[in-house]
Parts: sequence; structure tokens; C-alpha cells
Amino acid sequence: MLRKRERPGVEITEITGDAGRLPRQTEKNTAGVAIAAFLRHIGSDQGVAVTLHKKMPLGSGLGSSAASAVAGVFAINQLMGNPLSPADLLPFAMEGERLACGSAHADNVAPSLLGGFVVIRSYQPLDIIRIPTPDRLYCTLVHPQIEVNTKDARHILKKEISLQKTITQMGNVAGLIAGLMQADYALIGRSLVDVIVEPVRAILIPGFGEVKVAALGAGALGCSISGSGPSMFALSSDADTAAGVGAAMQARFAHLRIESEVYVSGINRVGPVVME
Amino acid sequence: MLRKRERPGVEITEITGDAGRLPRQTEKNTAGVAIAAFLRHIGSDQGVAVTLHKKMPLGSGLGSSAASAVAGVFAINQLMGNPLSPADLLPFAMEGERLACGSAHADNVAPSLLGGFVVIRSYQPLDIIRIPTPDRLYCTLVHPQIEVNTKDARHILKKEISLQKTITQMGNVAGLIAGLMQADYALIGRSLVDVIVEPVRAILIPGFGEVKVAALGAGALGCSISGSGPSMFALSSDADTAAGVGAAMQARFAHLRIESEVYVSGINRVGPVVME
Repeated sequence: MLRKRERPGVEITEITGDAGRLPRQTEKNTAGVAIAAFLRHIGSDQGVAVTLHKKMPLGSGLGSSAASAVAGVFAINQLMGNPLSPADLLPFAMEGERLACGSAHADNVAPSLLGGFVVIRSYQPLDIIRIPTPDRLYCTLVHPQIEVNTKDARHILKKEISLQKTITQMGNVAGLIAGLMQADYALIGRSLVDVIVEPVRAILIPGFGEVKVAALGAGALGCSISGSGPSMFALSSDADTAAGVGAAMQARFAHLRIESEVYVSGINRVGPVVME
Repeated sequence: MLRKRERPGVEITEITGDAGRLPRQTEKNTAGVAIAAFLRHIGSDQGVAVTLHKKMPLGSGLGSSAASAVAGVFAINQLMGNPLSPADLLPFAMEGERLACGSAHADNVAPSLLGGFVVIRSYQPLDIIRIPTPDRLYCTLVHPQIEVNTKDARHILKKEISLQKTITQMGNVAGLIAGLMQADYALIGRSLVDVIVEPVRAILIPGFGEVKVAALGAGALGCSISGSGPSMFALSSDADTAAGVGAAMQARFAHLRIESEVYVSGINRVGPVVME
């Protein structure tokens, strides 16, 4: 929640739900940094008090740092009378990611801000493509109670990829885009295959292979790592299947004595909204 | 042209337009191999006499070996009463490519056989995805009078690609598929960028950079190497521009004292047809 105040500057006045783990200084908080970048851009010295109600697990691969940054820029844009379009807010939200993981990437802030599936075609210049989302598509997210640091998960990636794997993965990317745009669920499933990043990062998630098998066995179209992990996601073509997939994944983690939280949801197509 | 004959076996009885360069032995000719593979598959010992009228330059990057293989399997399927669908003919046409360049790839035979744009998502199992083609899309092909051996052009490719380039190229692939499916010509243009293969193979084409600049300057959406070269292709959103692009590219090659042939065409959406 944002409130205008007389004294210039962005101040984080309260954070709840983070067990005291998030930094309170504006310049070390992803929402604070994003809001300050926005205000600099529009040339405003408006004072702002920020209250952050964190309702997502941290370090989960669910994009919690991005969620704060996006909420921040969306709210400050509203507060200032919407001078910018949602897409124009992206660079400021990306500043939050620069703080959180060392690079101003848009992997999480672009879909958070715009809703639905997006492709980041290019950063120089920034070129974000919105991909139409099939009507029936449900996401299961399972967050096991283990923590993976985003920076670590980036560091273990190989810097060189074989030409063969690159070709395979380009085929999967093309298939996924075509599948989404044609609402071809079988094609979405066949294309939800990651031969580059998943095999490396899966090592950091105990039981990854078994849990994935459980998800597919319960009817998921596909299953992989959410962000840099340890959360895993699965897509299903109906809500009941998505719930069953979540139960199956959670049971498999439980078998390995790993507690987990399950979230099942349709695809948000609109990005953030003002709640009151 | 195929004719049934009494004696079993596939015989190449005549080839025109190849200046005597193509092998006449069935097992060394891409059409002969493809036809024989088809007949083996359907368990027929039908005798066939093949006449090949080659109307494409060889070693051009235009897929001339694929054209013969596709023509062969399409014709023999017709001759035998169409026991197989066009898509089912692919594996036999791919046997022609195995002969021509050492690997049974579908880069050229899949679009030749099915028409339009196709994605080869996977070989194991074979998964070919047809991508809807925008109504207005024209191709300019320029074949400079220099020869590049397909096997050489494959060998100079780097075996390892940086993760950064892989990510960039996946963005371009996604953008191209979305651009084609939404008939977003600007997006098609921005996405017709190849950071992996083009920079390596362009070295084999004298003047590549200048010719590409000429194509874009004349209004092409994008321009790159056709197959393994030395032919270059450009896409345009109308026929007049496509013709102008061809003239500009040819002029640039001429400036470098390289003669070239220009072909301008819409996109074939149906694959091969019976001509009489």
C-alpha cells in the first residue's frame, strides 16, 4: 500500500509476512528501488510511504522479488494518476530485479505486470510479446520447504550449450508458442520440455524427477521448475486435474519427508489490480 | 515423372537440366532412394521408371536435393493410389537427405512436402508442426553464382553455443512464430534474426553483409541465408517490394562482379501438385 506524504523520498514504513527477512531500507528493497526509479523517470520528488504485505514465500522460485517490484510500480503509477502504460512500467520493475539477483531481467516482472504468457524477445531494445493464452489452462505450483538462492541457481548454469540441445530447445519453444496460440493442449504438453536449464537446476531440488513423474502421471500436460526453483509448476487443461496434480506432487515430496505448499490457479490475464 | 513398368526395381531413366552432374544410379540419387524406401515400406515390388526434370540450381541452398526426394515420394504415392498421407511420406523423403548430406534431416523436405512454414519440433519421435502463414508474404530468393557444399557448410558450424546467444535465439524463434500466426509483419521482421548460424555461414558468401543491407534498405522485413547457402532469402509483405528487394540484392552482387539469379514468389501453402 502506498500513501503520499509531504516529506520527499520513498520510505518503507512497514513490511508484514516476511518474518523480518526483507530489507527495510528503500535502496535495498525491490519495491523501494522500483518506486524510486519510476519517480526519477517522471521527474517527481513526491514523498511516498510504502507498506508491504508479503503473502508469498521468499526464495521460492515463485518470483516474490518481482511481485514486490511490480506491485510498487503499479501502485505508484496509480497514485500519480497513471502517467505511464503498464508496459512502460517494466524498466522500473526490472530495477528491482537488478537489486534482487544482480541482473535487470524481465523473466518475472514482465508476466506479473502484463498478465498471461509473455516472450522477452530482446532487451536491447526491450521487446516484450504477449502470447494469447488458451481459455482452459490451469497452473499447479508446489513449493517444497527447501530454499534455493536465485544467484546460486544462476551460477550453476552452463555457459556453453551444445548446438544439438540448442536446436532441440528452439523446436520446443516454437511448439509451445504455437500450442498456446492454437490452444493445442497436446502440443503444449509435448513442448513443455527443457533440455537446457531444467537438467542442471533439478539437481538442487531433492526428488525432482519423482515429483515430475507424479505430476505427469496425475494428468499434467507438462511439469518443470518454476523460476530458479525450488518450486515446481505443472500445467493442466482443467481445474480438477490441476488440483489432483498438486496432491500427487505434494504426496511425492511428503514421501521424501519434504513438506510443501500447493497453489492451484487459472492464468492471470490482466496483471495487477487495485484491491480497494 | 514416374511410369510403372513390369520389371521390379526403381530405375532412373533420364535426368535433364543437371548438366550431367547428378548420379543416375537409383541408390545414389535422392529421388531414387526416397522412392525405393517408400516401396519397401508398403511392401511393393512395383517396377518404376523415373524421369527427373531438374529445374533448380544444384548446391544452391534452395533445397534441390529435397525437391527431388519430395517429388519422388509424392509421385510414387500418387502412382500407387495414395496409400499414405503427405505427412506420412516424410520419413522416405528424409532418406533422400541422408544420402545428400549425411543426415536424414527434414529442414527442406518437410516444408516442400507440406507447404507453408513448418517447425520440426522433434525427430525422436518425428513431430512436425504446421504454422499458419500470413496472407500477404512474399519471398525473394537470390542465388549467386558461387557454390557452397552443404556438408562443408554444416561442418563449419560451432558445436557449442553460448547460453546468452541461445537465449537470444529462443526469443527470436518465439517472436517469429507469434509474428507469423498473428500476421504481425513488424514482429516477423524483428524476429528474422539469426545470431547462431548466419554469422558463421555468412563467411562463405562474398558480400553477404552488403547484400543484406541492400535487401533491408529496399524494404524487406528480414533477410538471411537460404539453407546452407550461398542463396539468400528475404521476406516482404507485398509483391512489388519483394521484386524491388530482389533487384537491389542482385545489383549489390553485380557490384562485386558476382552474377546471380533472382526468384520472387508467394508462399506455397499446399506442397507438391500433379501437373497433368
